[in-house]
Amino acid sequence: MNTRPIITLMTDFGNTDGFVGVMKGVIVRLAPAARLIDISHELQPFAIASAAFLNEWSFRYFPEGTVHLCVVDPGVGTKRRPLVAAMDGHYFVAPDNGLLIPALDQAKSARVFAATRKQYWLEPVSNTFHGRDIFSPLAAHLANGVAIEELGEEIHNPVRLPLKPLAVTYDRIECHICHIDRFGNLVTDLDQPTFEAWASRNGVRAEEVLIRFQRHTIRGISQAYGEKKRGEFLAVFDGYGRLEIAATGGHAASITGLGITDTIQVLAGGID
Amino acid sequence: MNTRPIITLMTDFGNTDGFVGVMKGVIVRLAPAARLIDISHELQPFAIASAAFLNEWSFRYFPEGTVHLCVVDPGVGTKRRPLVAAMDGHYFVAPDNGLLIPALDQAKSARVFAATRKQYWLEPVSNTFHGRDIFSPLAAHLANGVAIEELGEEIHNPVRLPLKPLAVTYDRIECHICHIDRFGNLVTDLDQPTFEAWASRNGVRAEEVLIRFQRHTIRGISQAYGEKKRGEFLAVFDGYGRLEIAATGGHAASITGLGITDTIQVLAGGID
Amino acid sequence: MNTRPIITLMTDFGNTDGFVGVMKGVIVRLAPAARLIDISHELQPFAIASAAFLNEWSFRYFPEGTVHLCVVDPGVGTKRRPLVAAMDGHYFVAPDNGLLIPALDQAKSARVFAATRKQYWLEPVSNTFHGRDIFSPLAAHLANGVAIEELGEEIHNPVRLPLKPLAVTYDRIECHICHIDRFGNLVTDLDQPTFEAWASRNGVRAEEVLIRFQRHTIRGISQAYGEKKRGEFLAVFDGYGRLEIAATGGHAASITGLGITDTIQVLAGGID
Repeated sequence: MNTRPIITLMTDFGNTDGFVGVMKGVIVRLAPAARLIDISHELQPFAIASAAFLNEWSFRYFPEGTVHLCVVDPGVGTKRRPLVAAMDGHYFVAPDNGLLIPALDQAKSARVFAATRKQYWLEPVSNTFHGRDIFSPLAAHLANGVAIEELGEEIHNPVRLPLKPLAVTYDRIECHICHIDRFGNLVTDLDQPTFEAWASRNGVRAEEVLIRFQRHTIRGISQAYGEKKRGEFLAVFDGYGRLEIAATGGHAASITGLGITDTIQVLAGGID
Repeated sequence: MNTRPIITLMTDFGNTDGFVGVMKGVIVRLAPAARLIDISHELQPFAIASAAFLNEWSFRYFPEGTVHLCVVDPGVGTKRRPLVAAMDGHYFVAPDNGLLIPALDQAKSARVFAATRKQYWLEPVSNTFHGRDIFSPLAAHLANGVAIEELGEEIHNPVRLPLKPLAVTYDRIECHICHIDRFGNLVTDLDQPTFEAWASRNGVRAEEVLIRFQRHTIRGISQAYGEKKRGEFLAVFDGYGRLEIAATGGHAASITGLGITDTIQVLAGGID
Repeated sequence: MNTRPIITLMTDFGNTDGFVGVMKGVIVRLAPAARLIDISHELQPFAIASAAFLNEWSFRYFPEGTVHLCVVDPGVGTKRRPLVAAMDGHYFVAPDNGLLIPALDQAKSARVFAATRKQYWLEPVSNTFHGRDIFSPLAAHLANGVAIEELGEEIHNPVRLPLKPLAVTYDRIECHICHIDRFGNLVTDLDQPTFEAWASRNGVRAEEVLIRFQRHTIRGISQAYGEKKRGEFLAVFDGYGRLEIAATGGHAASITGLGITDTIQVLAGGID
C-alpha cells in the first residue's frame, strides 16, 4: 500500500468546468494505481509565477517519488515544449514557461527533459487542452515507473521567468510579490529564516523595520492579522512562512493595484 | 489494484456546505473499495442542460466500468424517478430529468432502469437530499457489482430535455449554447470535427465564417483567446473542442444576457 | 481494502492557495494508507460555530473508525490546546475552541485529550500553520492506529462555544442561526424531528406557524424553495434537515444582516 505512486495536480482550470476531472480520468485509465491529490485549480489564469511559487513551496511536503503535475499554460497550442524533470527525488511535469524554475533553482540535484516523444501522449492531441492530452499522460507514465529518459531528450535551457531575485544588503531587503491569495493579500518571496538571519546580523528588530511600497509605510512586522485597525496595512509572516502585506478588513491587491513581481522594500529603520 | 471501481461525481451542490462530503461518506460506507473522482460541484444550480453536456463530454475519458453519479435535481422531493443506466460499458446514476439524454443519444448500446427498489436506498429517505439518500447508495451498489437489473425495472421513456439539435445546411450551422463556463464564455454544441467536415464539404474557410447572435457578428474563428482587442467578441474552438463565444477581457454571458439553449448562427460568409 | 482508514478534512483555508494540498502531503507521508475525503475548505474564515455545526451533522455518515480533521483556528500561534477526541467510534482532531462541542454534546460516549506530546507533531512547528504542523500529523497518527491516549493527557474542560441551546415551549421555539450557506441562506439549529414532535404535541400545523426575525414574519413552512415570489422570505427544512430561512432570488444573510448565533422565533400561530 505504501508504494502507490502519488500525483499532485495544480492548474488554473478552476473546479467548475470539468477540465480537472477529465485529466484525472486520463490518468487513472493509464495509471490505475496512482493516488491523486489536488494542490490548487483556482490559480489566477496564466499566472505562471504564482504557480511556480506554490510548486516550489509545496512539493517537499510530499513523499519522494511523487509526481507533481503543474499546468498553467498560456502557450497551449504553440510550439512550447512539454517538460518533465527529476529534482531531489521528486518528478515534475509542466510546460516550458518558467513554472519549474524556482524549484530548479533550489534543487540539490536536477535533470530536465523535453518530453516530445508522442507515444507517451494521447492520440490525437488537441490544440486547446494539452493538460489532458500531453501533461496528464506524461504524469501517468512517470507514476507507472517509465524512466524519465524515455520521455524525451535531456535539455539545459528551460525557459526562465523574468523574476528578480531577493536583494539583501545591510540596511534593506528588496523582496517581490510572488502570489496573491484568495483574500487579496500580497505574498512576497521573503522567507522568515532569511529575514531573521539578516535582522540578527545587522541588529534589526522586527518591530522597528519599515515596510515600503508606493506611498505606504508599515512600521513593524505583526505577529497576527488582527493587530491593526480596519483599513490599515499590516505585514506578517504568513502560512507560507513568507512576508505578506494585508489590508486589515480589505483586499490589498485591489486597493493598491500591486501585482505579481512588484517590489516591496524592507528597511532596517529604528535608528533615526 | 486495477479493479478498484471508480465513481465520478457531478452536482450543483457546491464545495462549501459539506453536501458532497456527506455523499462520499455514504458511498465509502457501502462501497469501501470505490475510488471517488470529482468532475464538478459548482454547476449553475438546476442547470440540467449544462450537467448533461459535461456528462456526455467527460465520461469517455474514464475506464469502462466507471459509475458516473450526476445530481442536478430540481425535482428533489417529487415523484420524478431515479435512473440508473448502462451505456457503452459505463454506468450512470441520475434523476429522470433529461440529464442523461445527450449521452444516451450518442451511445452505441444503452439500457435505462427506474431504480425504484427501496432496499437499495438509504432508510429513511429525506425530502430534501436525494443525492445522499438515493443516488449515492445506488452508485455504491453499482460499484459493488450489484447487477443493474436488480435496482429496478427497465424503462424506454426517460424524460427528454427540450433541446434543439444542431442544424447543418450548406450555407449555415445553427448551434446552441450548452454550457457557460466560469469566465462567462458561451460554449456551444458545435464540435470541431462537425464544423470541419461542413467547411471542407462546402469550401468554407474558418477565417471567413460569420458568427451571428443578437446584433453582433464575429468574422472568423480565432486560434486563441488573445487575438482580439479588449471588449471585442471572439469565437474559438475551446478545451471541450466546441465552438465558444468569449468577450475579450469580459464576461460574455453577462454582457449579452444569452443563456443555455440560445441559438448562435455560423454562416459560410466570405463571398459577398 | 475495507480496512483503509479514512480521514475527512474540514477547514477555512480555501481551495485556492495550496494549504489543504500541503496538509494532505504531510498526512500521506506519515500515513500512506489513509484515504482523504474533503468535507469543506470554504468555511467562512474563523467561523467556529459553522464548522462545529457541519462537523456534528456530517460525521455520522462515515464509517466508524474515521478520523475527522477540523481546522478553523483563529487562535493559531497562541497557547490554545490541540485536541483529539474519541466519540461513538469516531476520532476527531481540532483546536480547543469549541469546534467539537456540538458533537460532544450529542455523543453517547466521549473522551477528549490535549494532544500536547510534541513527538506526534511535525518538527519544527511554525507559528502560522498548525493545520500542517500539528493537526495533520495527529490525524495521520490516529489513522495509523496510534492509541489516542498516547497523544496527550485526558481533559474534561474543553473550551465551550457561547451558543444558546434550542428553547422549546408549548407556544414557541427559539432557534438560532448556525450556518450560512453559499447562497446566503440562514440555516438554524431546529431539526425537523424536534419541530414535528413539538407540532404534534401542541396541535400546531406547519402551514400555520409564524417564523419571526427582525420585523419580518413568514407564515408557514414551505415544501420547496420555489413556493414564494421573488423578494419574499421563505422557511423550509433544507438538505441538512434543519429549518432554513431563504430570500427567494436573493441572499438572505446580506439582506437581513443576520449572522451566526442570531435568534429566529417559531410561533405556534394559527389560532387568533
